[in-house]
Amino acid sequence: MLKLDIKKAITEIKKKNAKTVILQLPEGLKGKTLEIIERIEGKTKAKVIAVMDPVWGACDLAETEMKEFNADLLIHLGHAKYTDSKIKVVYVPLEYSVKEINLDKIQRMLENEKIKKVGLLCAVQFYNILKEIEKGLKKKKFTVLLEKGGEKIDCKGQVLGCDQSSAVKIEKKVDGFLYIGDGFFHPLGVAVSTDKKVLAFNPLNGEIKDLVEEKNIFVRKRYGSIARAMNAKVFGILVSRKKGQLRKELALELKKRIERKGKKAFIFSMDFIKSEYLMGINIDCYVNTACPRIIEDNLNDKPVLNPEELFEVLEKI
Amino acid sequence: MLKLDIKKAITEIKKKNAKTVILQLPEGLKGKTLEIIERIEGKTKAKVIAVMDPVWGACDLAETEMKEFNADLLIHLGHAKYTDSKIKVVYVPLEYSVKEINLDKIQRMLENEKIKKVGLLCAVQFYNILKEIEKGLKKKKFTVLLEKGGEKIDCKGQVLGCDQSSAVKIEKKVDGFLYIGDGFFHPLGVAVSTDKKVLAFNPLNGEIKDLVEEKNIFVRKRYGSIARAMNAKVFGILVSRKKGQLRKELALELKKRIERKGKKAFIFSMDFIKSEYLMGINIDCYVNTACPRIIEDNLNDKPVLNPEELFEVLEKI
Repeated sequence: MLKLDIKKAITEIKKKNAKTVILQLPEGLKGKTLEIIERIEGKTKAKVIAVMDPVWGACDLAETEMKEFNADLLIHLGHAKYTDSKIKVVYVPLEYSVKEINLDKIQRMLENEKIKKVGLLCAVQFYNILKEIEKGLKKKKFTVLLEKGGEKIDCKGQVLGCDQSSAVKIEKKVDGFLYIGDGFFHPLGVAVSTDKKVLAFNPLNGEIKDLVEEKNIFVRKRYGSIARAMNAKVFGILVSRKKGQLRKELALELKKRIERKGKKAFIFSMDFIKSEYLMGINIDCYVNTACPRIIEDNLNDKPVLNPEELFEVLEKI
Repeated sequence: MLKLDIKKAITEIKKKNAKTVILQLPEGLKGKTLEIIERIEGKTKAKVIAVMDPVWGACDLAETEMKEFNADLLIHLGHAKYTDSKIKVVYVPLEYSVKEINLDKIQRMLENEKIKKVGLLCAVQFYNILKEIEKGLKKKKFTVLLEKGGEKIDCKGQVLGCDQSSAVKIEKKVDGFLYIGDGFFHPLGVAVSTDKKVLAFNPLNGEIKDLVEEKNIFVRKRYGSIARAMNAKVFGILVSRKKGQLRKELALELKKRIERKGKKAFIFSMDFIKSEYLMGINIDCYVNTACPRIIEDNLNDKPVLNPEELFEVLEKI
């Protein structure tokens, strides 16, 4: 069950005597938009303006809306702080609560994989469940390790789609990782960034999955994209205008490096990177400087590389 | 044929010694993106960043990109100036040239409709053709009237999807209007905003169309939406964050007025107003404060009203 506690937001609105607040909420919560607005407007004097464009995470703060609507506060649901911003933001992370965690099943899986020293990881909305599992595994005599990664990371064990530092930091000290969350993108990132076994436990349905097959498919796909990129003559460099994703300097640097190899390079900026916006553009290969999740799909059947993969290609051509 | 003269942009880039320029171009020109960038980068020292999100017109300036990319100049293709902005913009309107204009055909249509005093109107990219037709019709002894509408209007006779003032100002002085352009949204606006006959001449295929049927369909659809809105209990007010479309005060005022009638009202902000971003939200009727073109479609099968239509509804309930 998803617990949504907006008391913190209401307290902040009252404290600031905010007149206009901007609300950002993840796609999964959109069905609750009206209810959330009514709760806020019922308990404060603020008028709420809800941003309905899809939100990618805490890297995607509605700064333009804050300025243009002359708003006093941004309420950002579902994510923990990620990037510094001059605007006043209240982060309201979501929390999942589950009736029961089958610790014996987790124990069996870990033992099967010979993981005695286990690194615990989670998506931020499962942090309370991670703490519970940590306690349970310690009782069962596992060595449990948790680390707070780089600056973008808000709490111990948290990983982002673009940041696996909480895992990488303890890679050498553990036999394997247990990720707690309901998707595979984050633990897949860990599986790719480290050489250790990653098990993903989904507390919502009780399932545990070994990420090895996903990792193999992902790596094969990446090799495929890199191979196709070797023959590319015209590169399109993708930049997002989302504050926490925008890497202008990197994009200009990539352009320079591609051109140095006698190839063409064009920089494309988008708020929301979509295939349809790039239709009819004659590009052989895209290079993505925004959210790393974008490489999951090809764009209009053209390969998409992350910068590190481009460097690999450029070295070889 | 479409003529694209970017010399003005190149001159401005050189004059400003611009290092980074942002390029915005309409969907119809996207196929030429690479060519345009290469021409600019080949003749200047600037690096071009092309904004690939769809552009709605000159009301949609890439201000965020200008700031975030620390750019020196915005090159805005295909539209004339519409709104004031602190950023440095070079507008590069497009021009259509056609081999021959069948003036006799235009003359016959006007005479059939008993239009002797004709108000000339156009979309800005057809302004040169409008001037030619003006000359021709004068030779044929028509009384030709042209007016520059409100502040948003850049040249005599120009109409926008949201501004028919160039027509309204001379409505009483003419027997009817001749609109020159390749779509029907602009002349339909004129047909709805005035009581005069509107003929739309498309110089690209030589066709002339009487807008009376489109007007009737449009008006019937509007009545349908208004009738459905009469029973609505929950209203969603749509605001665009696009600089030239953002009407926050109006949105807050609409919310107040709707609530005064005992109905619920929620404000939704979007960059690009799309049905898919509003799915799963339980709204009976949307009110659009952004580009008036949005009311052309229902949103997730819910009626969409413009503010004036909402006022009509609120008066009756």
